[in-house]
Amino acid sequence: MSVIDELVGELARLPGIGRKTALRLTYHLLKRPTPEMVRLARALENVAMRVRPCSRCGNLTEADPCELCASPRRDASVVCVVEEASDIGAIERTGEYRGLYHVLGGRLSPLEGVGPDELNISGLIARMGNGAVREVIVATNPSVEGEATAVYLHKLIRPLGIRVTRLARGLPVGGDLEYADGVTIAEALTGRRDI
Amino acid sequence: MSVIDELVGELARLPGIGRKTALRLTYHLLKRPTPEMVRLARALENVAMRVRPCSRCGNLTEADPCELCASPRRDASVVCVVEEASDIGAIERTGEYRGLYHVLGGRLSPLEGVGPDELNISGLIARMGNGAVREVIVATNPSVEGEATAVYLHKLIRPLGIRVTRLARGLPVGGDLEYADGVTIAEALTGRRDI
Repeated sequence: MSVIDELVGELARLPGIGRKTALRLTYHLLKRPTPEMVRLARALENVAMRVRPCSRCGNLTEADPCELCASPRRDASVVCVVEEASDIGAIERTGEYRGLYHVLGGRLSPLEGVGPDELNISGLIARMGNGAVREVIVATNPSVEGEATAVYLHKLIRPLGIRVTRLARGLPVGGDLEYADGVTIAEALTGRRDI
Repeated sequence: MSVIDELVGELARLPGIGRKTALRLTYHLLKRPTPEMVRLARALENVAMRVRPCSRCGNLTEADPCELCASPRRDASVVCVVEEASDIGAIERTGEYRGLYHVLGGRLSPLEGVGPDELNISGLIARMGNGAVREVIVATNPSVEGEATAVYLHKLIRPLGIRVTRLARGLPVGGDLEYADGVTIAEALTGRRDI
């Protein structure tokens, strides 16, 4: 097998990339200067070899604990629970949050065989032990499973005397009332605030 | 900059991959076993370091001349001219062609500043010199530029006493007459054959 076939094969294993796209991508890569391809290869290998989940929060990181967990400038009394490590970036980019994180690694989904034991929930509970945490913000996705996971965590953590909150649901900023679905409008009505 | 940011940056340079897709792809890669990512990285680097255009036909290859040019089982009296090296695979997969190839590296496009000197046309003419070639099949794309390139090559090669042919245009197999465009139907009528 030629090295080109090998690359096509490896690319075709990626999500959303079929054999034809892999072929097109390979030929595109071959049109670019060699150093650029080598740089991509090195970047991939570096990530593969050096990035691991943080043993404390599950964030993907080169250092352990990760720079968020290690930072003295983060508020250790608040923990934001997310489904995936990639969600941390989305929240960090807002610049509005100064607390810590915890990555579940998914959400409860009985249909897909994902129960509490498949998620990093025991690690979350362990972090509640030292009395430093005042609030847990559950930032799972606004889906049925994300909702169920939030309710489950609330039941587990509330008895420890820790406040459990959920991200607000409502109309997305810049959205259009006319095109919003009924459930979102209902949530926006329920959660309405004084101006 | 972290190794993750570096990988996202490199992926975002690929065609059709924006920053968000690059981020999603990176996090997906991070969920897979390390050896799989390393394999992809190595496959990329192997291609970058080892694959070069064949000095004879322009096909992308590890050996020079490429295995098609070097094969004694190919018919050296026919040369099929294609725009890109990736087109060779498409024709090879049909199993219907036993001749050699020549990669132009594009098609004539005055609007984009691509003239005869930007394409590997001199290399093609040089290959006509030894008297071994009887026919040149022009397999440029059935577009305006591909057409113009075919006419240009015909004018150049025909005077050498070599037959110049073009791939047939017509209805795609499995297609539907109702949905075919008028130009294609007109071509299919002009090129009609006895049953």
